[in-house]
Order: sequence, then C-alpha cells, then structure tokens
Amino acid sequence: MSAQLLKAQLFQLHQNKLFEFLVIGIIVFSALITGAKTYDIGTTMADIVIWLDMFITVFFLVEIMIRLVAEPRFFDFFKKGWNIFDFIIVTASLLPIEGNDSVLLARLLRIFRVLRLISVIPELRILISALLKAMPRMGYIVLLMFIIFYIYAAIGSFMFEHINPVLWGNISIAMLTLFRVATFEDWTDVMYETMTEFPLSWMFYLSFIFLTAFVFLNMMIGVILDVMQREHEEYYRETGEGEAGEVHWIKEHTEQMEQRLERIESLLLASTNNDTKLK
Amino acid sequence: MSAQLLKAQLFQLHQNKLFEFLVIGIIVFSALITGAKTYDIGTTMADIVIWLDMFITVFFLVEIMIRLVAEPRFFDFFKKGWNIFDFIIVTASLLPIEGNDSVLLARLLRIFRVLRLISVIPELRILISALLKAMPRMGYIVLLMFIIFYIYAAIGSFMFEHINPVLWGNISIAMLTLFRVATFEDWTDVMYETMTEFPLSWMFYLSFIFLTAFVFLNMMIGVILDVMQREHEEYYRETGEGEAGEVHWIKEHTEQMEQRLERIESLLLASTNNDTKLK
Amino acid sequence: MSAQLLKAQLFQLHQNKLFEFLVIGIIVFSALITGAKTYDIGTTMADIVIWLDMFITVFFLVEIMIRLVAEPRFFDFFKKGWNIFDFIIVTASLLPIEGNDSVLLARLLRIFRVLRLISVIPELRILISALLKAMPRMGYIVLLMFIIFYIYAAIGSFMFEHINPVLWGNISIAMLTLFRVATFEDWTDVMYETMTEFPLSWMFYLSFIFLTAFVFLNMMIGVILDVMQREHEEYYRETGEGEAGEVHWIKEHTEQMEQRLERIESLLLASTNNDTKLK
Amino acid sequence: MSAQLLKAQLFQLHQNKLFEFLVIGIIVFSALITGAKTYDIGTTMADIVIWLDMFITVFFLVEIMIRLVAEPRFFDFFKKGWNIFDFIIVTASLLPIEGNDSVLLARLLRIFRVLRLISVIPELRILISALLKAMPRMGYIVLLMFIIFYIYAAIGSFMFEHINPVLWGNISIAMLTLFRVATFEDWTDVMYETMTEFPLSWMFYLSFIFLTAFVFLNMMIGVILDVMQREHEEYYRETGEGEAGEVHWIKEHTEQMEQRLERIESLLLASTNNDTKLK
Repeated sequence: MSAQLLKAQLFQLHQNKLFEFLVIGIIVFSALITGAKTYDIGTTMADIVIWLDMFITVFFLVEIMIRLVAEPRFFDFFKKGWNIFDFIIVTASLLPIEGNDSVLLARLLRIFRVLRLISVIPELRILISALLKAMPRMGYIVLLMFIIFYIYAAIGSFMFEHINPVLWGNISIAMLTLFRVATFEDWTDVMYETMTEFPLSWMFYLSFIFLTAFVFLNMMIGVILDVMQREHEEYYRETGEGEAGEVHWIKEHTEQMEQRLERIESLLLASTNNDTKLK
Repeated sequence: MSAQLLKAQLFQLHQNKLFEFLVIGIIVFSALITGAKTYDIGTTMADIVIWLDMFITVFFLVEIMIRLVAEPRFFDFFKKGWNIFDFIIVTASLLPIEGNDSVLLARLLRIFRVLRLISVIPELRILISALLKAMPRMGYIVLLMFIIFYIYAAIGSFMFEHINPVLWGNISIAMLTLFRVATFEDWTDVMYETMTEFPLSWMFYLSFIFLTAFVFLNMMIGVILDVMQREHEEYYRETGEGEAGEVHWIKEHTEQMEQRLERIESLLLASTNNDTKLK
Repeated sequence: MSAQLLKAQLFQLHQNKLFEFLVIGIIVFSALITGAKTYDIGTTMADIVIWLDMFITVFFLVEIMIRLVAEPRFFDFFKKGWNIFDFIIVTASLLPIEGNDSVLLARLLRIFRVLRLISVIPELRILISALLKAMPRMGYIVLLMFIIFYIYAAIGSFMFEHINPVLWGNISIAMLTLFRVATFEDWTDVMYETMTEFPLSWMFYLSFIFLTAFVFLNMMIGVILDVMQREHEEYYRETGEGEAGEVHWIKEHTEQMEQRLERIESLLLASTNNDTKLK
Repeated sequence: MSAQLLKAQLFQLHQNKLFEFLVIGIIVFSALITGAKTYDIGTTMADIVIWLDMFITVFFLVEIMIRLVAEPRFFDFFKKGWNIFDFIIVTASLLPIEGNDSVLLARLLRIFRVLRLISVIPELRILISALLKAMPRMGYIVLLMFIIFYIYAAIGSFMFEHINPVLWGNISIAMLTLFRVATFEDWTDVMYETMTEFPLSWMFYLSFIFLTAFVFLNMMIGVILDVMQREHEEYYRETGEGEAGEVHWIKEHTEQMEQRLERIESLLLASTNNDTKLK
C-alpha cells in the first residue's frame, strides 16, 4: 500500500509545474556547464565543474527513476518513444563515469544531455514529430540525389583523377568535391582546373548544378506539400471552422436534406395516389 | 477654449496630407544628411550639416509635440505602439545633443531616425506588423536551431580545439564558425583542416549542413503557412467573394433551405393527416 | 483604294505564320551576329558581319514599318506597350548608324535587339506581364530592405571606416559591402577584420544577415502568394472546372433551388389554405 | 507450344519478387564495382573486378532478353519508355566490350548502369515522371533566363574584354563568368576588377543578380504551382476524400436534389391543378 502511495506521490511530483521548470533549469545549467568546459578555466573552477557535472548526472538519474517508478506498469515507460530517448541519453551520460581513460567520450556523451530540452518542451517535441513525419517522402529523393552524385563522382573520378587526385582521387573524395560544388563553395576553382585539359568540362559542372538544384527544389516542394496537407487535415479535424470544415458541414447537411426530400416526395406521391384512387 | 481650438487646429495640421509629405521629406533629407556625413566633406559643409542636423532634430521634436498635444487625452498617445516607437527615436536623437564627448553615440542614435519612415508610411507599418505576427511561430524553431548549433559547437570545440583554436577555441567561437559553415562561406577550408587529423570529420559537417538546412526549410515553410493562412482568413472576412466566401454563403443558405424543408415536410404531414382524418 | 488594299495585304503578311518564323529567325541570327562580334574574327569576316548587321537593321525597320502601316489607325500602333517596346529597340539600334565615333554605343544598343524575342514569342510576353504584375507588391519590401541596408551601412561607415576605408569608406561603398555580406560572399573576411578591434561586431553581421534573409523570405512569399492568387482566380474564371469552379456552380444552383423551394412552399401553403377553406 | 510455355515461365520469372530483388542487388553490386575501380587496387583485384564486370554485363543482357522474350508481342517491349531506357543502357555498356582501345569510354558507359536503379524502383520512376511533367513549364523560363544571360554576356564582353580576357574574352566565356556571379561564387572579385576602370559597373552586377534571382524565383514558383495542381487533382480523382472530393460529392448530390425538387414541384402543380379542376 505504501508503495502505491509513493507511486502516486512521485507521479504528482512529476506532474508538478515547478518540478518541470526545475528540470528545464537543470538541463540549461548542464548545457552551460558543457559550454564552460570549452573555455580555459582555472583548476579550482574545473574541480567545481566536475562536481556540478556529477550532481547533474545524479539529478537526471533520479528524475528518470522517479518517472520510471511513477509509471503504473513498469514496462509501459518504454512504450513511449520520448521516454526511451531520455533513458538512452541519461544512461549514456552515466556509463563512462567510472572509467578515467575515456574522458573525451564521456564529455561527448554528456553534450547530448542538451537534447533533453527537446523531450521536455512540448512545442519542440511537436516540431520534431512533424519533421520525422516528413522524412519518408524525402527518402526516395535522397536516394535519387545519391544516384546523381554517384554517377557524376564516378565520371569525375575516371576523367579528372590525373589532374587533381586530392579532389578526384576516388569515388568518395569525388562525391565530397561534388557536394562542395553543389554548395557553390569555390566551385569555379574546381572547374577552371579541369577546363585546362577538358575545355568542355563546364558542361559536367553546369549539368550537375542544374540537376541537384532541380532535385533539391523538388525535395523542398515535397516537404512543403506534405506539411501543408498534414496541417490542413489536422486543422480541419480539430476546428471544423475553416473552409474545409464548412464544406464538410455542407456535405453532411446535404445528406440530411436529401433524405428529407425523399420523404417529402414519397409523401406527395402517396397523397397523389390517394387522390387519384379517391376520384 | 482656446486650448481646445489649438488642439483641433494641430490635429488638422497633423492630418494634413501636405504636412505628411513634409514629414516624409524631412526624414529622407535627414537620411541623406546622415549619408553625407560618411563622406569626406569640407569644414564649411560640415558646419552646414551640423546646423541642418540641429534643425531636423528640432523639427522632429516639434512634430512629435504637435501630435502629443493634438491627442484628445494626453496619455492615449502612448497607447499606440508606433507612437512610442517615434517618441523613443526622437528623444534618443535628442539626448546627446548637449554633451560633446559622445559624438559617435549621438551620430549612431541619429541614424535610427531613418526608421521613422516605417512609422510614417502605412504600407511599411503593415509589412512590419505582418512580420511581427509571424514571429512566435519562429521562436521555437530558432530555439531548436540554437540547440543544434550548441551541440555541434560543443563537439567541435572538444574535438578540433587543438587543431585550430582560432576557429574552435571555445563554444562561442565554434558557434560562429558553424554559422559560417551554414552559410557555405569557405566551409571546405574549415573541413579539410580537420580532415587531416580526423578523416571522418566530413560526417560532422555534412550532417550539420543537412540538419540546419532542414530546420531552416521548416522555418521557411512555417512562415509561408502562417502568412498564407492569415491572408486567406483576412480576404475571406473582408470580401466574402473568393472560394471561401462562396462556401460560407452556401453554408448559410443551406441552413435556410433546411428550415424551409422542415416547414414543407410538417405542412405536408399535417395535410396528409388531415386527408386521412377526412376520409 | 489601293492604299486600303496594301494595308490589308501587309496585315495579312504580318499575320502570316511563316513571316513570324522569319522574324524570329532574323532575331536569333542577329543575336548570333552579336555574339560573333565578341570573338576575334578576321577582317573579311568582320566586313561580312557589318553588312549582315546593316541588313538586319534594315529588315527590322521594314518589319516595324509594315506593322505601322498595316495598323487601321496610325496612332493605335502606339497604344500597345509591346509595340512601343519594339519601336524603341528598332529606332535605338538605328540611330548611331550614321556616326562613326560611338561604335561601342551602337554595338550596345544593337544587343538589345535580342529582347525582341520576348515581344515576338507570346509565352514570353505572358511571363513578363506576370512578373510586372507582381512588381507593386515588391516595391514596399524593396524600400524596407533599402532602409535596413541604409541604417547598417551608416553604422558600418561610422564605426569601421578607419579599419578598412576600401570596404567602409562612405555610405555607398558600405552598402555595396553589405550586399556582398548578404550574398555570403567572403563575408567572414569582412567580419574577422572588424572583430580585431570590435570583438562584438559579429552581432552587427549576424543581425544584418537575419534581417535581410527574413525580409527577403517575406518578399518571396509575397510574390508566391500574389502569383498563386492570380493564377487561381484566372483558372477559376476561365475553366470553371476546378474546385473553385464547382463551388461557384453549387452556389448558383443553391440559389435556384431556394427559389424553387419558395415556390413549392407557397404552393403548399395555398393548397392547405384552400383545403382549410373548403372544409 | 513450348515457346509459349517458355514465354509464360519467363514472364513469371520476371514478375517474381525474388528475381526483382536479385536485379536490384546486381545493379547495386555493379555500382560498387564501378566505385571500386576508382580506387588503387592490386592487379589480382583488378582482374577479379574485370571478371565481375563481365558477369554483370552478361547478367543484364540475359535479364533484358528474358523481358524481351517474355513480352507477348516482340515490339510491344519498345513501346514503354522505361524499356527503351533500359535497352539503351544495357546495349551501350555492351558495345565496347570487344574493343580494347576505348577503355575509358567503356568505363563511362558502364557507370550509367546505376541509372537502372531508377527504372527498377517504382517510386523513383514516379519521381522522374513528375519531374519530366514539370519540364514544359520551365522551358520558356529557361529561355528567358538565357536571353538575360546572353544580353549581359554581350555587354560584359564588349565593355570588360580588355580588362580581363580570361573572364570576358568572348560571349561564351562571359556567360560562364555570369553563371559564376549568379551562384555568388567570388563574384565580388569579378566586380572589383571591372570597377577600377568603370566605377559604376556595380550596377551591371547588381541588376543582373536581381534579374536572375527574380526569374529563378518565378521558375521555382512555377514548378511549385505545377506540382501542387497536379498532386491536388490526382488526390481528388483517386480518393475523393479531401475537401475537393467533398465539393465534388456535394455538386453531384445537388444535381440529384434539383431533379427531385423538379419532380416534387411538378407533382404539386399537377395536384393543385387537379384540385382546382375538381372544385
């Protein structure tokens, strides 16, 4: 019974607005600590930072345990994606605390604690969900873009390797060089170099820029359309007030009107028949 | 009574179209004076400019006083955001007139007088209001972008500091470097440098570019959707002529038709009942 | 009477599809000649080019005269914007033929003959009209952008002139430098230079980049919305087949149904009254 | 009869899901082989690669023959665009197998086998079709952009040739330089060079950047509108569930209601007439 009571109390604590702000505060504080570590700070400060860091680690551990215990059923906790997200971040930042050698790895893993801001602030969680939903539409376009990059990289590597192996040495390096061309970063230097031997190689670069820009444009449009349609539908379902909501209202009422008209017609037909029979 | 009369006359003056054009003219002239001060001009010219500057300052002061006095109730003036905007600009450009030491600050504060163009021209005022309304939607996306920058800057600072402290010295410098990478400004130089030690660091840059481009895209879409929805609703409310207006018209008339049909059905039912009773 | 006949024949010639293709051909040929002149060609070739150029000038003159004469009323010709456009291009390329000194000007004026492609091909004419219609919406946004540039240029000129007069010498040069920053062209070089003296000057550049990107985005959205609304309305008016067309159809038929229902109700009411009276 | 049976069996093989995955696998493997050839690999590996390459070539040949033979009528195979696409890629990679001299050409032609991924994966095929459909709308805008480039290149070539023949030597080089300016790639270097002689030449560059950005924007909008309209119509036709579908439903039912109302009115009129006659 006392376990039940504790569960309830922990749940209340977890739902508490003040506790939520405390968690956000600690996350921001943890981010600042992470930032502070990149500056040259004195040894006393560094010691304080290490202690603070440990405190934050423990706090996060306690917080996630509260949430774990407060959950009515233990394993339901792991059914929500965001809980797993939090759990991985917290345990990852916990792991290398014992060891001393992998300081860099420990540091890197602790940076990701900033990501907990996303799971704590609902608006950010919604944003990320929206971005993830738009992903599948992008998958095939990214594949198409990869094919374009691959073919151009293979051609570039075969043709220009002897001109500049640093840029065209093998297909991976060539793909990186092409990504650079796609971002317009000193791409003319790359082009002028190959044009000394192949004067027509500008066609290679221009066609590549056109293709990637075109596919990228399409990707953008795909996302825009996707998000638009999604928002539109959601707005329609939730409010029923916009144009789409009014159209839906009209549709439903048109159905009712039709049924009523049917009844009216049958009534009239019956009365006419009666009249005819009467006469 | 004469105060009342003065108020009315000042209000009329302020509403006068010619006076408005005079104000716009003086603002543009003030902007030109500001521009002129950046050129190497002779001392006589410089003296003239100082006198003109003083005249403009006095003119703006008089203009805002006219508006203040013309206001029926004194403090209503400060209820409109644009009035406060004007007041701050005018008083700020006034303040350092007495001192002689803070010439640069005085100059800088007077530059902002050009901003009065926005509060004077209604179309620009509308534009700024529209931009401000789209702001809240952006807030969380900017926060998300900041988190991405922060995490990458922390990683970059830990990993690459010893390679080039000028670019990755601490988290603030690293964030500036990452902003540079996000604008594609000589980003390959930054990348090639770290790739000498970490050959896989291209993944760091590419993932960063993809993430920021993706989030930025979403930000853009957010604004587009926001402004679109706003414009759509406004158009709908004001004209009632577009598709949305027609749908609304149909909805209202469908309601009326339903009521009429109900009346018709009850009439018919009554007459049929009558007929049945009669027989 | 023969003048009338000539007019009719010229009009027919002008409407002739073959003649149109001839005109397009000559324009393209004229463009090629213009291009050829930029290459180092032998003197014989140059002579031929001069003769060809003269022929083209005469051809265009004749063509526009045909259109002028073919016009039923002489001055109606100048009522269409595209005719004036053609007339100016042809006469401008004609003017410096007599003089010998202004060869460069003559050459430049003849380049613009390529623009006649736009007035000859209807699809391009439609495109240009659409672009021109979107212009007014842009006017105020360009003004807003100019204000932002002006203020930042004035600040930049006051603060950074002594650091690098080549980039910040006066307000015009500063505006050009800011345009460079807005296009992300080596903007970090500009920034790092001023950051040596003013370590916080990155705020100047970042806020400028955000503001211009934001205003530019809005400009883009403005144009997108404008063109969309225009296309939507046009499609609606012309075809009546899309969603908007169907809604309009429903609206009209709802009106007719209402009138019919009114008639039915009055019929029923009359018959009920009759029945009641009868009994 | 056995030929018929073979046809059927081959058709079944071709439709087999496993066979499809095998084909995709071989294409990806072929792409990897192509990539491997760009690395410095030992001679034994190179020999293996040559043998694998030959195997892939034969496999593709067999695969396309199966599809050819499986086709009920032989020439129907060439009626589908994607079949021709595959056929050209396979035969092109086949051709130079006999020769030994044109190793580079053979290699290049074999790279395009990666493109077969597009024809094998249906989603990519749909993407490409969508892109192709948006093409015509772009045609005229590309032409308009070409005209702008041509005129600016001609002017640039006439004016700046003596300043830097490498950038402005003739109209083709000038167009390439302008493309570089349009991508903001070190465009200020180009500008500052010409500004030493023509201080006002910044107007040339700025107007060009504005024009191309403007036209490019329009191109983008054109594509967005095109794809949107297409998707909208398709969704409407296929599902009938969205707003457009509901509107269409309402339209059809409004038609039915009108007919029913007509019948009701005529019934009422008839009965009223009867009543009148009776009395």
